[in-house]
Amino acid sequence: MRILADAFGGDNAPSEILKGCAAARRAYGYDITLVGDTQKIKACAAHDGTDISGMDILQADGVFSMETQPTEILKAGKDTSMAVGLRALASGAGDAFVSAGSTGALLVGATFLVKRIKGVKRPALGAVMPSGTTPFILVDTGANAEGTVPMLCSFARLGDIYMRQILGVENPRVGLANIGTEATKGTKLQIEAYQALSELPGIRFTGNVEVRDIPLGAADVVVADGFTGNVILKMYEGVAKMMSNEIKAMFKKNPLTMLSYLGVKSGMDGFRKKLDYKQYGGAPILGVQKPVIKAHGSSDAYAFQSALRQAADCVNGDVVGKIREAMQHEPQSESAGE
Amino acid sequence: MRILADAFGGDNAPSEILKGCAAARRAYGYDITLVGDTQKIKACAAHDGTDISGMDILQADGVFSMETQPTEILKAGKDTSMAVGLRALASGAGDAFVSAGSTGALLVGATFLVKRIKGVKRPALGAVMPSGTTPFILVDTGANAEGTVPMLCSFARLGDIYMRQILGVENPRVGLANIGTEATKGTKLQIEAYQALSELPGIRFTGNVEVRDIPLGAADVVVADGFTGNVILKMYEGVAKMMSNEIKAMFKKNPLTMLSYLGVKSGMDGFRKKLDYKQYGGAPILGVQKPVIKAHGSSDAYAFQSALRQAADCVNGDVVGKIREAMQHEPQSESAGE
Repeated sequence: MRILADAFGGDNAPSEILKGCAAARRAYGYDITLVGDTQKIKACAAHDGTDISGMDILQADGVFSMETQPTEILKAGKDTSMAVGLRALASGAGDAFVSAGSTGALLVGATFLVKRIKGVKRPALGAVMPSGTTPFILVDTGANAEGTVPMLCSFARLGDIYMRQILGVENPRVGLANIGTEATKGTKLQIEAYQALSELPGIRFTGNVEVRDIPLGAADVVVADGFTGNVILKMYEGVAKMMSNEIKAMFKKNPLTMLSYLGVKSGMDGFRKKLDYKQYGGAPILGVQKPVIKAHGSSDAYAFQSALRQAADCVNGDVVGKIREAMQHEPQSESAGE
Repeated sequence: MRILADAFGGDNAPSEILKGCAAARRAYGYDITLVGDTQKIKACAAHDGTDISGMDILQADGVFSMETQPTEILKAGKDTSMAVGLRALASGAGDAFVSAGSTGALLVGATFLVKRIKGVKRPALGAVMPSGTTPFILVDTGANAEGTVPMLCSFARLGDIYMRQILGVENPRVGLANIGTEATKGTKLQIEAYQALSELPGIRFTGNVEVRDIPLGAADVVVADGFTGNVILKMYEGVAKMMSNEIKAMFKKNPLTMLSYLGVKSGMDGFRKKLDYKQYGGAPILGVQKPVIKAHGSSDAYAFQSALRQAADCVNGDVVGKIREAMQHEPQSESAGE
């Protein structure tokens, strides 16, 4: 198992990326190839005291900045660590690629350098999220702003395979994110997708999921167009952040409340851990020919380590092979998704 | 000030509705007309010991059920308490109407019985919501599943007027809910709406609001198509509910955690109060010729009382007059919103 890691993606690169790689290597024994400027990687590791011995380094001169247009990954940005890593993945120099850099660029790069699995019209960005009960995957969270019915069907398939292979859910409940449970709810897209999803073979479509019930764990796979999925993801983060701020302020109010905190500290820690997206790694780009994981832009070492483990899980669970297999049996429509 | 109250809308009607009306009458001295079956209203008040003396009763035989198609409010449901109340409002028998019944039916009824203000293509459903800082209004939260650019501009105007007149915000920050702050983010709808909102006279358009920042109070008016607005509203409710459950469980764990709860009880109460949507009343239907308020379906007496106060605030703040005035100056497009 060799994982390619973009050493220069994300807010805390390369320092936290290198630490995450070292931790993953220590914990799981993966072979890791760091992609980026050799000299800077070595200098950073030396400065931090991070042990990168035993890791390969694949030289790449540039860094893909967050401000650059995503499509530049194929042009002006073709020598950045992200582009070099993706090409190395495509050529077989590694089994999976992880980057905390620009989501848009990683999507474009994965689609055009690693390439789509035959039958997949549009790769999707998944997000594994905690709920009040069991974690679920939300697909798509923004790879495609506009949605079509065939795309939503494809997202259902991709999410279903991910939950089976990576989270071991036997017969995932697949739900369509909607503003009501009735089949007639939503825009034209949801109304038509409801019918199409109902008829999708091998998928346990449990109908529309009221958005209110998503954080309570109402489905294992939540299907949404990229715009809606991104809104769901961001509202989750925003409300959780706002409430955490309020709770923190509440405990910090006075000596009595601070004392109270001690009594619930372990509970709060468990709560925080349960809601910590980092434990699930990053966002898998589903539908391309090798596992590509988008780690959170603000990844620290622990988050990046989790993303590396998730990449390895995707390799071990043969997510790509399972998607390829499913796509061979998928009814194909010429006009689908284009 | 006379407010018409649908005595038979919502999960807890008529008991909690009557109690809410009695409390509002006691607290604010409003004249209230209860709409519904006279005998049942009197029997319920007698049973509960609710003082409805001094309130008028407008007889209506039927109740509009949640399962009935909204458009039936104009046909088979025309003798229900909701329809009778809306017609009474239109005829001048009251200054505002409040119902906790079917949202869809109330929207159809308000649009076709109370009628739109000239220039308003589609009435919108607002929702006043708490944030980490100051409350904001989200428009639309589901009156219209599909959105158009002129509709979004109209929502901005309606929300702006509401925040000025009812919440006293002097120069409201109007933001477009989107998946990124850049003008090029989102679907075709958001990209085009961004431009149109930038050029809307008299509106302080502060650009796209990252959905993640909405619960933190990033805008005073959050503009969204009805589908997206409903997703935002429901995710807010869902995440808050999930986190509240977790916090509750944490404090209930053992004697030590229960003791700790006592230390933060006042803080928790304050927190709960801050996040309690009930304090802001219900959802105003904006763009019709008289104030119509949709109280939450699960309204208890307090929530219904707040909705009555909100209705009175709309009358006192002349929200309808201000909207009418603004619409006279609005650039009209023949094709707008249809």
